[in-house]
Amino acid sequence: MQAEAIFTGTEMLLGQIVNTNAAFLGRELAAAGICLYRQVVVGDNLVRIREAIDNARRRADLIIVSGGLGPTEDDLSREALAAALGLPLVEDPAARENVTRYFAARRRPMTPNNLKQALLPAGARAMDNPHGTAAGVFLEHEGKVYALLPGPPREFEAMLVNQLLPRLEPYGARREIIFSRVLKIAGIGESAVEEAVKDLLHSDNPTLAPLAKPGEVTLRLTARAKSQEAARSLTAPLEVAIRERLGDYIFGTDDDTLESVTGAILAARHLTLAVAESCTGGLLAHRVTNIPGSSDYFLGGMVTYSNEAKVKFLGVEPEVLAARGAVSPEVAAAMARGVRQAVGTDIGIGITGIAGPGGGSEEKPVGLVYLGIDFRGQVEVRRELFMGQRENIKWQSTQSALYLLWRSLREQLK
Amino acid sequence: MQAEAIFTGTEMLLGQIVNTNAAFLGRELAAAGICLYRQVVVGDNLVRIREAIDNARRRADLIIVSGGLGPTEDDLSREALAAALGLPLVEDPAARENVTRYFAARRRPMTPNNLKQALLPAGARAMDNPHGTAAGVFLEHEGKVYALLPGPPREFEAMLVNQLLPRLEPYGARREIIFSRVLKIAGIGESAVEEAVKDLLHSDNPTLAPLAKPGEVTLRLTARAKSQEAARSLTAPLEVAIRERLGDYIFGTDDDTLESVTGAILAARHLTLAVAESCTGGLLAHRVTNIPGSSDYFLGGMVTYSNEAKVKFLGVEPEVLAARGAVSPEVAAAMARGVRQAVGTDIGIGITGIAGPGGGSEEKPVGLVYLGIDFRGQVEVRRELFMGQRENIKWQSTQSALYLLWRSLREQLK
Repeated sequence: MQAEAIFTGTEMLLGQIVNTNAAFLGRELAAAGICLYRQVVVGDNLVRIREAIDNARRRADLIIVSGGLGPTEDDLSREALAAALGLPLVEDPAARENVTRYFAARRRPMTPNNLKQALLPAGARAMDNPHGTAAGVFLEHEGKVYALLPGPPREFEAMLVNQLLPRLEPYGARREIIFSRVLKIAGIGESAVEEAVKDLLHSDNPTLAPLAKPGEVTLRLTARAKSQEAARSLTAPLEVAIRERLGDYIFGTDDDTLESVTGAILAARHLTLAVAESCTGGLLAHRVTNIPGSSDYFLGGMVTYSNEAKVKFLGVEPEVLAARGAVSPEVAAAMARGVRQAVGTDIGIGITGIAGPGGGSEEKPVGLVYLGIDFRGQVEVRRELFMGQRENIKWQSTQSALYLLWRSLREQLK
Repeated sequence: MQAEAIFTGTEMLLGQIVNTNAAFLGRELAAAGICLYRQVVVGDNLVRIREAIDNARRRADLIIVSGGLGPTEDDLSREALAAALGLPLVEDPAARENVTRYFAARRRPMTPNNLKQALLPAGARAMDNPHGTAAGVFLEHEGKVYALLPGPPREFEAMLVNQLLPRLEPYGARREIIFSRVLKIAGIGESAVEEAVKDLLHSDNPTLAPLAKPGEVTLRLTARAKSQEAARSLTAPLEVAIRERLGDYIFGTDDDTLESVTGAILAARHLTLAVAESCTGGLLAHRVTNIPGSSDYFLGGMVTYSNEAKVKFLGVEPEVLAARGAVSPEVAAAMARGVRQAVGTDIGIGITGIAGPGGGSEEKPVGLVYLGIDFRGQVEVRRELFMGQRENIKWQSTQSALYLLWRSLREQLK
């Protein structure tokens, strides 16, 4: 079954609200094994909603319209569907009951314009809406299925899940499911990832799709099958093949983050962590402490913006600062070692760099960052050169620091 | 000028990401006086992207495509536009420069697949992308304008505002403008704000719209007029009326944040700041250091998650911790005082609380937070009880701390 979705609402075209129904619908249809090939957003305009329905019915078997079911003159989806199919609008008892019940329950008088919500295209069935006045519309006509759902997200979501999807089972819904698994990758760029898996990108079922975020690449493996198990058995060999090539960079799957994955290892191994930050200004500590239970392994952090603070709290030697500058591999190492000793932890991380926009030079440009890690006295330093704005450089620096931590944990705990 | 927008990306159809570019585009086009009549979302599929372009060019004068400009084989927007218009793809020096510059700046080798980003439909001009590898595409062809923009929101937004909209001025963009001014409010809840301005909410031009975010309320004043000046003269009297009622809570306007506003005062008055954080885990230092130039006034931060760290680095007395507990007004005050003295600043801030989900009790529930500020020895403590998840409680705590700082600066510098 192939679907198209039409979202009505001038406020979406003006950017006054974000169309969250689209993402919800996408996930639910995917889970039900229905392919959604297009989404269209149009304003509250009879001609354009009708045209969108006309175009969609030429391509798809299932046409879903969100919004335009209310009582006002801007609400035109019922009229547009009736016009597109050449059907009259007739009053439906269940839809009328949906409106009157709503006002009765609130002991409010119903204004007459509300009764337009009881009019459905001839042959359509009302879909119950416990959260609002407007019933939904379900219509099979000349081999195609049309569904009109209310626009407010709470009403849309409940009606989709409880009313529409069950009615689509006779048409094949849920017989085929779409299963996605995401591999999360750090420490390597998007094009290098793609180069490594280039020959796997053409497969059809499962499909493989790369997506780049700052400091992170994800690979999404998607399979369609009759059951969750069958879909998993399609993605599993693909995942094995990818892990053989990129295993050193795949730090997690699905909703994993670098901070959740490293946190779980630290907690399981009873290891403790302290961090010393200069250019990242507390972002690394913030990310580490976003994980519930992080107080078990994260004992403290220092944001040492000034040289004085680096000397006083981390024991960085003034001579090293003078000779090599605050942004140097030596200072990154000294910060990692200093914070580990001061706080008394197994692991210390030090970050020093230039987040910009000021402070850069030809020799040490904005984006230059040194990261140090001290794992029970064994120190390693990594050099990075990031592009972007201040906040982006901060973010990428913490990605790199957490990747360094993850890799150290893997190596040290082998 | 009538526009249609096409967003490409299978991940949007599957509901894995929300299409935030759509709302941003809608607002920017509305402000430029360009009517956006349709948005279409299609997957990474050459036939369907081409079909969407074909349909759009029959109805609109301006066709904007978002996404599909990267180096991978899923990136098909250039190919689809060339195919729709029957144009060959030719290498463009500016687009090639955009890719090579990106890799050169990172001192990373460029994989060959990246060079496909240098290919544009014949006759097109590249639009510069300082944030990524893919240049945008601008093409006038048979009386219609086509624009291809990269999908990542940061790249999309910058290119739309800095590259595309200026190029649309000859076609009539920006003749009627929409001017918005935002008043930013903290330290008071949404319903109290709404109550205070209730009688002003019904005006038509300018309009007034409240919006609540965690720890912040914004009031948006919007006017439409022929010129920026005419629009400003519509919003100015409304702003005066609002400031008379809510002046003690309006900390800024438009893109101001609590950290930018307090940072500007600290810099102007040559005051210095240090922070000591427990439950916020570094988020306050991170926000303070997001401001360029913050190294002039922010000298250091401590994330003292453990009691030991509070004693060792901040001089909190073990007896106070034992008697009152770590989450107490006494400890918040001692942290503020301790970090001010340890780092040697004019102002110290201390935060202690329970971010959850664990660690709460009947007496001290999750969300209980104490904030202390020490302004040259004068100490003030504020108690808060926040609702929400861990990250939300962390965020609201830093909002409250920064509001406390803003109010102290206003009072102390009167």
